[in-house]
Amino acid sequence: MKVIHTADWHLGKILNGKSFLEDQSYILDAFVDAVEAEQPDVVVVAGDLYDTSYPSKEAIQLLESTTQRINLKLGIPMIMINGNHDGRERLEYGAQWFEHADLYIRTQLHQMVEPICIEDTCFYTLPFANVSELQAYFEDPEIDTYQDGLERCLAEMKNVLDPSKTNILISHLTVQGGTRSESERPLSIGTVESVTQQTFDMFDLVMLGHLHHPFSINSEFIHYSGSLLQYSFSEANQPKGYRCVTVDKNEGHQSIFRPLEPRRKLEVIEADYDDIIQERIEVDNKNNYFQFKLQNMSHVMDPMLHLKQIYPNTLSLMNTTHHFAETSTEDTTEIQHMSDIDIIRTFYEYITEQQLTERQTEKLVHIIDPEAKDSDS
Amino acid sequence: MKVIHTADWHLGKILNGKSFLEDQSYILDAFVDAVEAEQPDVVVVAGDLYDTSYPSKEAIQLLESTTQRINLKLGIPMIMINGNHDGRERLEYGAQWFEHADLYIRTQLHQMVEPICIEDTCFYTLPFANVSELQAYFEDPEIDTYQDGLERCLAEMKNVLDPSKTNILISHLTVQGGTRSESERPLSIGTVESVTQQTFDMFDLVMLGHLHHPFSINSEFIHYSGSLLQYSFSEANQPKGYRCVTVDKNEGHQSIFRPLEPRRKLEVIEADYDDIIQERIEVDNKNNYFQFKLQNMSHVMDPMLHLKQIYPNTLSLMNTTHHFAETSTEDTTEIQHMSDIDIIRTFYEYITEQQLTERQTEKLVHIIDPEAKDSDS
Repeated sequence: MKVIHTADWHLGKILNGKSFLEDQSYILDAFVDAVEAEQPDVVVVAGDLYDTSYPSKEAIQLLESTTQRINLKLGIPMIMINGNHDGRERLEYGAQWFEHADLYIRTQLHQMVEPICIEDTCFYTLPFANVSELQAYFEDPEIDTYQDGLERCLAEMKNVLDPSKTNILISHLTVQGGTRSESERPLSIGTVESVTQQTFDMFDLVMLGHLHHPFSINSEFIHYSGSLLQYSFSEANQPKGYRCVTVDKNEGHQSIFRPLEPRRKLEVIEADYDDIIQERIEVDNKNNYFQFKLQNMSHVMDPMLHLKQIYPNTLSLMNTTHHFAETSTEDTTEIQHMSDIDIIRTFYEYITEQQLTERQTEKLVHIIDPEAKDSDS
Repeated sequence: MKVIHTADWHLGKILNGKSFLEDQSYILDAFVDAVEAEQPDVVVVAGDLYDTSYPSKEAIQLLESTTQRINLKLGIPMIMINGNHDGRERLEYGAQWFEHADLYIRTQLHQMVEPICIEDTCFYTLPFANVSELQAYFEDPEIDTYQDGLERCLAEMKNVLDPSKTNILISHLTVQGGTRSESERPLSIGTVESVTQQTFDMFDLVMLGHLHHPFSINSEFIHYSGSLLQYSFSEANQPKGYRCVTVDKNEGHQSIFRPLEPRRKLEVIEADYDDIIQERIEVDNKNNYFQFKLQNMSHVMDPMLHLKQIYPNTLSLMNTTHHFAETSTEDTTEIQHMSDIDIIRTFYEYITEQQLTERQTEKLVHIIDPEAKDSDS
């Protein structure tokens, strides 16, 4: 059995005001061509098909036309789940009809125990759900972390899992130790979002979405496909593509990353302004999306304007003549020894260049701990 | 052959800040029950399924679940077109898959020559398109009015139409002389939107959406189903439901309106404030959506607050102690004798209580007729 594993398409993504829709359309053309050449038995998309829960009509059309070409024209089954960026209701619209054509859009937790079996291979789907949704699903407020929730899900699946088959899990989550990128929106605020690798031991193979680097973790049986394109400048040097997975119960499996060539890459250039504007420094491709970190440009009135005349897709410009950020590590360490009110006071002074008044301080102290006696009065 | 004809669901409609979603869910339950009892061969929805081109997830879910029950659960074919309120891209999403289950969502003009034939009855679909879309489709800038555009469409259909069949047109437009309601957004600005009844002579039957009154026009073969619910106070006395159509090439057809009972109606009450607040005037149902046109309430601080304590779904309150609007008929007549610039001048004065300056007048004259010599200078 051959499976194409992809994820994190983020259709409709906008970076620094620039819509990536054209680039996404270009790379999906390349992807569909690759799928046609590979002739897989199934294509898996492990979440974050859209970048937002309110996708534009152009993003919707791009998803529909891509799916049409793979599922209806090439006749290849597809399995999709929602990621943390997708709106569940919009993504699952039409799912009951789509199943007749072997297009499976899985957004519901209860479907985790209804694997999609093709020959001897069973695909279990665990769409993205936040901790409170997991609590509600299991009617158990004790579920505090993703690890808790995931263990409960896997226990359910274990009841129906047939070990004589090849069992594959499709999910959208963070595995401990995974390489992070800036364009991955955190799955949760205030709780550890990552789960341990061992949790997945009952599966032969785990196909994941969420982390954007295709080699995010080092595992024999757990893989991220990575995102379709570079979606933040922190991904500027990451390869992007899909995974081609061959599955065999006896001979084991192989998951091989295959890169796709985008129309434009993201490129970060650190240099002196004049060197860039005089083109003394070579860039990969002038049409790439650029982040410039430049020194010595205080003599220029509108550097962005000049840069865009040479590098039309410049998305970001930082002045690095002064190094503001270098003390940040120390700051972080200091914070651990500070009281809550002192952290707020320091932050307030840093942002406003003014001091908190006594009245403000009192109010904050009360907000932080409403039960404490007012010690100042 | 039995056809259920409905239209103008306007899912997601909000009137004066009140979402009608609960009422829509209620009435669609009743509609699905009626469909189950009628056992038609096909259900036709003639446009304006959604109230907006960006429907909420709740509206999307309601459309999906209703369609599921009729098409998948009861196994009844459905034909839908877009109206002027629907976003074509969102409505047609998934259409290629849906067709396999005999759910036809038609939003494209080119499909007008691809009738959906069930036994001896052929359904031609003409979704809503504005005049400029019709110009673009026919590559003909001479198309100036709906009548022009529609005639071009019908000429295309005539080429493929088989007169030995029963031919039904499904469209979303205004037929001349039709009764209007306030919740129908105009199809166009600046051109006559209505078309003549004779235009449709080649069809046995025309099933329309757009006008909200189920008896909007008086015709043997052209019918509006009317909207699912009362959607503006101008519809307060209109019956709402669906049409049950029996079609027979030899015996002719019957289109019978069948009312559905909503959870709440719209009710307009003209009265004296005290009579209403003392409950001296009987209303149909205190939970209805009310528009009150009341006299003598200047002595009350917050009349809306008091009204809502008795009539919780009060949506509109007008003070009718003074009669501002009574001269409007005269105004309309006068306008016919005025020049364009005088109409604008009067309107400007009415709105701003200021006079147009000479410079403004000159500019407007030039805009109205760029070729005219400036007669004032």
